[in-house]
This record gives sequence, C-alpha cells and structure tokens, in this order.
Amino acid sequence: MNGNSLGKAFKVTSFGESHGKIVGITIDGCPAGLKLDEQDIQRELDRRKPGESEISTTRKEEDKVEILSGVFNGFTTGAPICMLTWNKDINSSKYELIKHTPRPGHADYTAKVKYGNFNDYRGGGRFSGRITAGFVMAGAVAKKLLKKVLNIELIAYVTEIGGIKSKKISLEKIRENKEKTLVRCGDLETAEKMEKLILQVKSQGDSIGGIIECQAVNLPIGLGEPVFDTLEGDLAKSLFAIPAVKGVEFGSGFEVSRMKGSECNDPFILKNGKILTKTNHAGGILGGISNGMPIVCRVAIKPTSSIDQPQKTVDLVGKKEVEIQVKGRHDPCIVPRAVPVVEAMVALVLVDHVIRQELIKRILKP
Amino acid sequence: MNGNSLGKAFKVTSFGESHGKIVGITIDGCPAGLKLDEQDIQRELDRRKPGESEISTTRKEEDKVEILSGVFNGFTTGAPICMLTWNKDINSSKYELIKHTPRPGHADYTAKVKYGNFNDYRGGGRFSGRITAGFVMAGAVAKKLLKKVLNIELIAYVTEIGGIKSKKISLEKIRENKEKTLVRCGDLETAEKMEKLILQVKSQGDSIGGIIECQAVNLPIGLGEPVFDTLEGDLAKSLFAIPAVKGVEFGSGFEVSRMKGSECNDPFILKNGKILTKTNHAGGILGGISNGMPIVCRVAIKPTSSIDQPQKTVDLVGKKEVEIQVKGRHDPCIVPRAVPVVEAMVALVLVDHVIRQELIKRILKP
Amino acid sequence: MNGNSLGKAFKVTSFGESHGKIVGITIDGCPAGLKLDEQDIQRELDRRKPGESEISTTRKEEDKVEILSGVFNGFTTGAPICMLTWNKDINSSKYELIKHTPRPGHADYTAKVKYGNFNDYRGGGRFSGRITAGFVMAGAVAKKLLKKVLNIELIAYVTEIGGIKSKKISLEKIRENKEKTLVRCGDLETAEKMEKLILQVKSQGDSIGGIIECQAVNLPIGLGEPVFDTLEGDLAKSLFAIPAVKGVEFGSGFEVSRMKGSECNDPFILKNGKILTKTNHAGGILGGISNGMPIVCRVAIKPTSSIDQPQKTVDLVGKKEVEIQVKGRHDPCIVPRAVPVVEAMVALVLVDHVIRQELIKRILKP
Amino acid sequence: MNGNSLGKAFKVTSFGESHGKIVGITIDGCPAGLKLDEQDIQRELDRRKPGESEISTTRKEEDKVEILSGVFNGFTTGAPICMLTWNKDINSSKYELIKHTPRPGHADYTAKVKYGNFNDYRGGGRFSGRITAGFVMAGAVAKKLLKKVLNIELIAYVTEIGGIKSKKISLEKIRENKEKTLVRCGDLETAEKMEKLILQVKSQGDSIGGIIECQAVNLPIGLGEPVFDTLEGDLAKSLFAIPAVKGVEFGSGFEVSRMKGSECNDPFILKNGKILTKTNHAGGILGGISNGMPIVCRVAIKPTSSIDQPQKTVDLVGKKEVEIQVKGRHDPCIVPRAVPVVEAMVALVLVDHVIRQELIKRILKP
Repeated sequence: MNGNSLGKAFKVTSFGESHGKIVGITIDGCPAGLKLDEQDIQRELDRRKPGESEISTTRKEEDKVEILSGVFNGFTTGAPICMLTWNKDINSSKYELIKHTPRPGHADYTAKVKYGNFNDYRGGGRFSGRITAGFVMAGAVAKKLLKKVLNIELIAYVTEIGGIKSKKISLEKIRENKEKTLVRCGDLETAEKMEKLILQVKSQGDSIGGIIECQAVNLPIGLGEPVFDTLEGDLAKSLFAIPAVKGVEFGSGFEVSRMKGSECNDPFILKNGKILTKTNHAGGILGGISNGMPIVCRVAIKPTSSIDQPQKTVDLVGKKEVEIQVKGRHDPCIVPRAVPVVEAMVALVLVDHVIRQELIKRILKP
Repeated sequence: MNGNSLGKAFKVTSFGESHGKIVGITIDGCPAGLKLDEQDIQRELDRRKPGESEISTTRKEEDKVEILSGVFNGFTTGAPICMLTWNKDINSSKYELIKHTPRPGHADYTAKVKYGNFNDYRGGGRFSGRITAGFVMAGAVAKKLLKKVLNIELIAYVTEIGGIKSKKISLEKIRENKEKTLVRCGDLETAEKMEKLILQVKSQGDSIGGIIECQAVNLPIGLGEPVFDTLEGDLAKSLFAIPAVKGVEFGSGFEVSRMKGSECNDPFILKNGKILTKTNHAGGILGGISNGMPIVCRVAIKPTSSIDQPQKTVDLVGKKEVEIQVKGRHDPCIVPRAVPVVEAMVALVLVDHVIRQELIKRILKP
Repeated sequence: MNGNSLGKAFKVTSFGESHGKIVGITIDGCPAGLKLDEQDIQRELDRRKPGESEISTTRKEEDKVEILSGVFNGFTTGAPICMLTWNKDINSSKYELIKHTPRPGHADYTAKVKYGNFNDYRGGGRFSGRITAGFVMAGAVAKKLLKKVLNIELIAYVTEIGGIKSKKISLEKIRENKEKTLVRCGDLETAEKMEKLILQVKSQGDSIGGIIECQAVNLPIGLGEPVFDTLEGDLAKSLFAIPAVKGVEFGSGFEVSRMKGSECNDPFILKNGKILTKTNHAGGILGGISNGMPIVCRVAIKPTSSIDQPQKTVDLVGKKEVEIQVKGRHDPCIVPRAVPVVEAMVALVLVDHVIRQELIKRILKP
Repeated sequence: MNGNSLGKAFKVTSFGESHGKIVGITIDGCPAGLKLDEQDIQRELDRRKPGESEISTTRKEEDKVEILSGVFNGFTTGAPICMLTWNKDINSSKYELIKHTPRPGHADYTAKVKYGNFNDYRGGGRFSGRITAGFVMAGAVAKKLLKKVLNIELIAYVTEIGGIKSKKISLEKIRENKEKTLVRCGDLETAEKMEKLILQVKSQGDSIGGIIECQAVNLPIGLGEPVFDTLEGDLAKSLFAIPAVKGVEFGSGFEVSRMKGSECNDPFILKNGKILTKTNHAGGILGGISNGMPIVCRVAIKPTSSIDQPQKTVDLVGKKEVEIQVKGRHDPCIVPRAVPVVEAMVALVLVDHVIRQELIKRILKP
C-alpha cells in the first residue's frame, strides 16, 4: 500500500524513476505568500548534483528544476507545488544484466519480489539515490519557509568517513569551511584525509561509508507531537528514506547507553533571561518535543552498494549461485552528496511540525 | 496537532495519563477472526509491570487489562478494540514540586511550554513510561496476529548496560535464557555483571542506560513501502515513541560508516533452494523492504532521568536557578523493563506492513 | 482496513458496540485550555437519550458519560480525551434470531459477509444507532470549542417527516421552539401533525422517515481545503456516518438542478461594511470554502429499518426464503433523536476545519 | 492545511491550475502489473474535453495526457503514477477584471479571502472545472483496474436537466444510447428536449443545471469501512470535489424521507442461488457497506456560474456594490461534460475500497 507521501501539514509526494522520464515531487500544504522561484530550488539541487568532482559519479545530469504549479507571480499560492527535473544522461544498457541477478546491497532483489517483473529496475528505478533530487527540491522550499517564518537555520556536514573522524569544531567554523571541501567536512585537515581515503577505495573499485551530522538552530520550544509523532521519530523516519542510511541518533545518541543519569541529564540554566540547558546530551529534544537547544542528529551511511569488483549473487532464473561485476558510474563515497539530502529531510519534518504546533498553540490564547 | 495514532492499516491510538484514571489504547484495523482474550494481553503486560524486582521501581500497579470492545465470543470482530488498565497506586503529592521547577532530562519543561499550565504534570502525565503499558497491550495483539498468520517471531533482549556488553550468542540461547535474568540478557554471565552495576548505581541514587536488540524472524520478503514508509523508517519512528530512546540502528548500524562496500554488501546465496544472504549487515532490510533475513535492530536507552540526587534547574515562576531533589519510586535502570515495549513497537509496525503488503500483492495475481 | 477515525486536525476514533460493555470515542487534537467537564457532554448526550417519549424506543439507557483522560483540573490538557458510557439495559436474547436471517434494511447481511461469523450482531453491534452516542460526546466538545473560540453556533431541526413539511420560519423562532416539541421542529403547528403521523405509523408497527436541516452561523470565511477536503465533502462524509442517512444537500441542494445561473448565483452585496450574498442558494459554501453566510445543509433520513411486521428475508444457513418478525424496542421515527447527532457531526467537521484553516493563514502574516 | 489528496489505499494527489502550465495528478498505491498506456487515459479524457459541441465551451484544449512515471514496458510498476496535460489555449486577459470583483456563484471571493492576493485567479485557478481533467486521468486507471480485477462496471448518465426528466429506462438501453446524445442521456426522446433547453438558455446568455445518476454493477459484497469510511460517505466526499455539485443521494435518496419502513426496506430474496434484494431503495449500500446490488447514486449539478449577463457584485478594493459582465468561453450546461468526471470519482472511491477490503478479508482465511 502506498508509502510515497511524507508529512501531515506540509505533505510531500515523491514520484519518478532513475531512468524514467523525470524525477519529481509535489508539496501539498505550503502556505500562500512565500516568495519562491526556480533559483531557490536550483541552488539546493546543484549541491547534490552528480558529476561535480572526482569523488563523485560521472553521470552528468543538469538537474534543472521546473516548477509546474502552485507558484504565481513569484509567490506560492497555497495550491500544490509540483516540481520535477527531466532525466537526460540515461544509459540503461548495463542494467539488463541485473534483471535476474540482484546486486548485493541493493534493492534489486527485494523490489523484484515485491513488484514482480513489473519493477522498473533500470538504474535502480525508485530505489536510486537519484530519487532524492525530489527530496531536495521540496526541502529547498521547506528551508526557505523555516528561514523566513522563524529564522530557523539548518546545517549538515560530514563528521566521519571510513572511521576517520572530524575534530569537534564550532558551528561557525563548520559553516565557513564545509562547502570548501569536496567531502563537506568543516575540519579542513581531516577533510583532506577523508578525500585521500575515498580516492584510495575508488582506485580499488571499492566504496566507503561515513556519518553526517545535522544541526538545526533557532527552533521554537514545543515542536513535536507525542506520543507517536515525536520530533525524533518523525526525523528518523524521514532520514531512513535516504538510501544507505542504517542508523539515526540524537544528541549523545548511542553514547547515552553508557552514561549515568547524573551525567546525561542536561541541567537547566538561565542565560540572559532565557532558559537553556548547560549540556545538550538530549540533542535539543525532551519527551519528543524541541526544548529550544540546537537539534543535533547523526546518520550512519553505508558504503555505496555499487562497486567495481566481482560479487557473489544468485541467478534468479537459473536458480544458481553466480558472480557478477557491474560496471557503472558510481560514487565511491556517497556521503558528501548526501549532506544536502539530510538537510532537506530535516527541513521537511521541521516545517511540518512548525505548521502543526506554532499554529495550534494560538487557538485558545487570550 | 494530534500525534497519538500510529500505523496505517493496523492503527493504534494511545490515551491516558500516568496519574489519571487509566492508561489505554485503541486498535482500529485488526482483522476479524483472531482468537483473543484478556490473558493474551495480560501475559505481555506482566512482563513490563513495575515492582517486580529490586532493580525496578517500587510503584505497585496490578496493571490488569480490560478489553472494552472489539472482541466477541473470544474472537476479534473487526471492530475497534479498546483496552485499558485502571491506575491504582497513585501518589501525586511529590509532583507539586515540579510544577514550576522542571526536572532535568524530563519532558516537564517542554510539556509546560507546549501545553501551558494545562499540562497534566502528575507523574509525568503523558510522558511517563507508564504510557507504554498501552503500547504493550496493542503489541500483544499484533504479536499474536503475526504468529498466527505468518509464524513471525519477535524477540528483544538487552545487549549492553552501562558499557557492559553481552557476548554474541545464538538466538536459541537468548530465547532460553533471557527471561531467567532480571536484566533480560541472554548471556547469563554478563547478566550478572549488569545486575551488579545497576544495584551499584541505585545505591548512589543514580541511574544507568543500555542497549536493547530486537530480532524478527520468519518475515516474508517484501514488507515495507518505499520511498517514505520504509521498514526502517517506520520501525525507527515507533521505537522513538518509547521514552528514553535516543538512537536506532539496523543490522551493522553505525558500524557501516566504517566499512567498505566489499565488506558491507551481503552476498546472496542459495541454501536448500532458498535465497539468503551470507552475512546480514543489512539487518534484513534492503531498499526499505524486508529481504527474508532476520530483521535486526538496536535501540539506545538513556539512563532514567529521575535520580535521587540534587540537580540544577530553573524556577520558572521565580525566574532563578535552583536545585531540586525529587524523591520518587524510580527504576535505576529502565532498560530491562523496556524489552517488552521494544517488542511491542516492532510488532505493531510489522503487522501494519504485513497487512499493507501481503494483501496488496495478491490483487493482480492470476 | 480501518475506518473508525474522522478528522485530520481534530481526530476522533469511535469504538464500542450496542450490546457490548461500552460505547465510546477518543478525541486526539483538542487544544489545551478548553474548560470542560462531564456536564458539558452529558447535556448533549441527554438530547439523544432513548426512552424519553412515546415516539421513541423504550430501551432505557442512563447514558452517563465518563471522561477517562485528557482533562485535568477542569480543562483540556492537549492530550487525547477518551470518553465512554457503560451499556446497561441490554437484552440480546431476541437477536439470536437474526444471526442467520438478516433483517431487511439493516446491516446484518453486509456485516456478516464482511466480518464473517465473528461479527457482533447483538443489537446491531457497530451498526446500531447507539454508536452515535460517542459521536455526540465528541460533538459536545467540538461545539463548545467552536462557541468559545469563534462564537460559531450550530442548530439542527426537523423540516419534514413522512412528507409533512415545516413552513419556512426564522432561525430565532426555530431556536425558541424546536426543543419544546417531541419532533424537534420549530414550526409548532406542523410539529403536531408530525407527531400524529408518527403515532399512527407506530400503531401499525411501521416506521417513517424525514429530513433534518442544520445551520451554522458566525463562521469565518475561508474554511474548507479544496480540492478534495471541501467543506461540503467533509460534511457529507461525516453525515453519512449517521445510520439511515441516504442523501445530503447544501443550500438549495437538488433544487439547483432546476435553476438557471441567473437565479442560482447569489449576488454579492455590502451590508454595514460587510460582504454578504443577497440570497444563499450556495448554502454558505463556494468552491468548497465557507463564504461567511450561514452554512445550510439537509439530510434525508430513511424510516427505521426495525419494524414490527412480518418481512421477507433469506435464511443464510438453510439457503431458503423465509419470513421474520423481529420484536424489539425501536423508534417509530428516528428523525427527532438524530437531530443532536447531526449537530455533532457538523460540529466535528467545522472544528477540524477551523483548526486547519484559522491557523495556517497566520503563518505568513507580517 | 493540505486537502489535495484522496483515498487511503489508492491515493491520488491533484495539482495544476486552469491557466498555469499544466493540470495533473499522481496516483500512489496502484498495484504493479496493470497493463496501461496513454491511450487508456486519453479515451476517458476525450470524453470530458471542451469544445466538442455547440452545447459546450469553445475553449480548445487538446488535453493530451502524458504519463511521466510509474509505467514501464506497458505495465504499472507499483510506483507512483504521475500524469499531466499541458495547458495550451490560455487567454487570461479577461480575468484581470475579476481580481477585485468576485463573480457571483464562483470561488473568486472565498479563494481571495483564504489565500489572499497570492491566489491564482486566472481562469478560476484551482477552482476551475479544468482541474477535473486530472480526476479523469486517475479515474481512467481506477476504472481499468476495477474492470480487470473484479469486472466491475461503472456508468453515469444524465437523468435531468433544468427539470426535464429522463424516463426510467434499462441499463442496457442507457449503455447503448447515452454517448450518442450530446447531453449523455439514455432516453433519446428526452435528450432532444434537454438539448433544446440548453440552446435556449445559451441564447439568453444564461446557464442551466441538472442531475447525473451513476451505477456501479458487479461489486463484491463487503466494500466500505464503517463507521466513518462508509461507502456512501467516501463517495459523497469525492463527488463534492466536482465543482458545482450541491447534493448527493443514494438509492431512493431524499425520497426515503417520505417512505414507511415497510416500503423502504428491501426484502432479501434468492435468485439462482444468489442473495439479492427485491427492490433497491438502499442503492446497493447497507450500513455503509456494499450489499451486492448495483450502487446507485445521484448528484445535483448547479447551473454554470459563468453567465453572459450583468450581475451584481462588490468591488473589494473600492468597497462598493458594482455590476459586472464577464465574457468567457463557458458551457451553458456543464452537466453532460461532468458525466465522465462522476464516473471517475466513483471509480476512485471504489478501487480504494476494493483494495482496502478485498485484501483484508483474506488475512485470516484458512
């Protein structure tokens, strides 16, 4: 049963395939009156565009966004916004191979069982990272809305690749440095090591994983709708929609399992008349609700499944074990290109909750 | 805006408060014809009941479930199933203290900002772990349905407490041992060490966190509805509804960030004519869809926020920093009691996806 | 698949059976801060209570509401409100008869096919008019919220019974008179004729249908979310949840099919600086959105299916045509008792749309 | 808050504007494996195309559908199907007039209040009948699925225009005749009178309303999900999404209000071993659930609001009453062109319920 919509107030619906005509998304629930043009979207889209560096795939996609509806005279109208990009650089020939021999680590096998022979397997179809172009389009609208309405800022960056960890550095530094590096890590020194590692695994026809951290600052207190639509829960759900994500954590995350209450509880303090917490092990969320501190989350990204090495799999028709080696134009490390996607997913969830909460709380105000 | 329902096909709605009249849940979407009586629910509920051991709270709650609707002559009717338990051992006096001085690590502050002075703060209200009694009731129905329809088995157990890690042991061993130990860890030797650690932090008026792992076996291939209602996404969302969860990961989880593709990709193999994967770094999920291997997920549980030590906070009325020490009847380590809750949440998501997928796929079958 | 929830922002979930333990409802999405006690609910519930007059069933139900959650210190908390009434005067013996011989006009047959032998057929189970007690409970909360927040008033009344039509009278007159008459018609003279007709069909062991009109005044302009969640669409959907409703129309309703555009278009006029329409053929809704004029809708109610006469049906076990005569305590005309239910359904939809619209429109206000 | 999606299992999302780039729709939840090409959609779309006869608007739109996603090798893949048509014959100049002087009977005023000056008023924007082109696209897929999976047939036809009523004729006759007449009425003699009436009101610059009846045959028993997602409720909601619909009724509809139970109850009978009802006052629905008899519903369509006569309205800027006369290319009677739209809406709801019910009922089958 359908699962291609996300959000309750700011609802997006994803569509399109990697090697089909288009990749797109519809937003239903964007308020009227937001200044918006294609450049706002294009800017974000360019950040995830393939073929931009030697650590990325060589597939060349212009990824030019086209807004088809919901914008009039440069402003959103309140009607659904449909946006898409036309696929251009398609070469599906090599995917004939995988029709019956699923690639390890990919969705080829599960999609085939789920959708039968009707599945559009070309280029991974719906399971391609290319689908996230739509996420980024919608995320661009969400980010602009968050910025305009509440001055909320979102920033994601790479903290770890193949075990190489970024030093703890300030948000200012990250903001300043991260887009200068191919790996989108704010710690310039470490960034260099990460790049080297990526080039090395690339030369082996292999790939490597990593960790992306995202922070959201200037959030109002009170976002999140317990007990099920918690901020953590909704963020995690949206982040797991990014192919390759295998773990999500908030604040001190898995580290909390090793802490005592006396260490983990963030004491409340007063600072310039504002209530803050001294530490932020909670990652800005208490009881599923934002507490005004920066939201901090991290996602674990697995190494790109597509590698240029022989791999064991099963021939589904011949019913026997075989070896395949799929040539393709794949990213040796998808982590840097996933950074704007992480921002997009976080933005989509936050804007949904801003609409759900900031508004409801006014209804019985005197 | 409302956030107390979970699931699309098997939809539960949670209600009740820690110190109100009741804690309950409604299931809408349970098919007619499932044999069900209160004992089926009670059995699971007893597993999370408080006051059962020296490592748990001393609050005494009988936690007797009452089925109010949806069951007739011992079978589900297809109508909504409403279940609840009446709160008995309520002592709200000590919560007057926290009305204006939020406890660190708790939702007192965020709830107060979100709901104003109308929030039912007694015993944590909607944010109490007690709310999970309702989750377990619904989960019991889900587990029975999964078992009956597809012979799916779910098992959760503690793998880590305060940094003390269980050895890797077989599922059989875990099944055999875990309920014998107070900490619900299948590795008996480690379980003993964990208990000691809990008693030690308890004696200090402190608390400790841990990790729970859950496996689901015998799943059909094809559960999960990409691109947003992935199995990982829906499981993560439901697991973050458990108070104190700060991280969720699948398969090799955060470890994948340090792996190469050639290590992380699980090769497909044939075993007795069935297609399996040799390893299970994917945790049974590829492209958001179950691949037939055991689903493996882990949740990080923070130490109980309630501790018997002085803590810094802010007096919201007096607008000044103060120190509080809340006496209460708290679990020094909530991890063991969260085990049946983890199973419940996983069961709720799986049964939802079983209904969504197992059925849709038949519609165009010849 | 589940269908027992209504509303997106103010979401109700119905549960309970006619001859089960209880009939109840849960509201998820009621804002915190509404003054509310059981008397607010009871007052509305008493209006649909059975056994109140000679034109109603003799089933005696105290219908005492109990609020189980979501209210604290006399105010809503923002948490789900669970309310129910315990069934008392149950006599299921005579329903054994209908287990295999479905009553014409009832849901016995369709429920049996849909839910199999698991259906709770006693007293009509989920298909009994008794289920609307829950609707009225939730509607009472909705009405109070509408009144308090926006001073919206709702009033339903009978305009036709068995072809006997009320004269067109003013809203003031209706308000003044309708609760004085057993049939809830504001036109006292006609009301008397209606009562006589009902007693006459009752004496024949028969039943009779009618029409209820409902008006909502003081609505803000802008409620309704096209293109699918139009005000008409959502109102109609909720009204068809009332057993026995077979038609819903707005404004001039079916009469518009016989009108010319020049007659049917309501001209805009200025009155005391406010924009109104001269006529109200549109029933207060244009393009699915409220236009500030009174919402006017009408529902057609079929005669009670339960009659004290022999009727033809089929013995589902013996597979042959038979005759049945079901004794019971049935309303010869359910229309008057359906009046508060119509108000409840309209209130539920309006409050949902008030939350959805009144709030969203503020988000980009300067 | 967003309202542009319909359906729970077969979910459509509408987008596009009358004078924007496109009008389109996305289907999420169409099972994989349905043979589908653009011709299947085009055939239905051509039936609602403007400019086809002298009783229709002279706007010329090719209305050529383009399928952008979800179809591969001629079959649906299970992924979202995005379809649209590019607007061609746009002339927005005359709509400048209505920016501040809302046309009576139109949504100009309510849309302006709801969305402010951001509303795309050109050609009615989202409120134009043109939006139903998207409904018909999705409906074409739904109709094909219903036909293929369950051999369900849908047929709508005009029964009344401006008070001129069709005789009762057989479904066979209707099927045979209705598309031969410009008004889509199966009664050829009456059709002629209707046409004459339309041409007459057209010559006066006026418009006229009518009634469309729709039947669905071969439905399985058991569709519909009480208590809120009843078949009547969901059908009514979807039908009110068609601009100009002001009433919806089922079976004997408003007539039931004048009937006695002994007349209105449809007796069950046995015919060739099948259980039918002798009459069909219920319109094929009992308790909100299909009973196997033909679903019969009727919608009241108001006269086209756009007329070529001076009308009174208010100048919103000048704040004074004025007169306008909007020239345009409008249908003097929209009823015939609404026929395929009614079929589309009914198809969308039925396919949603077929997926919801036909599947769930199998889950606990032995």
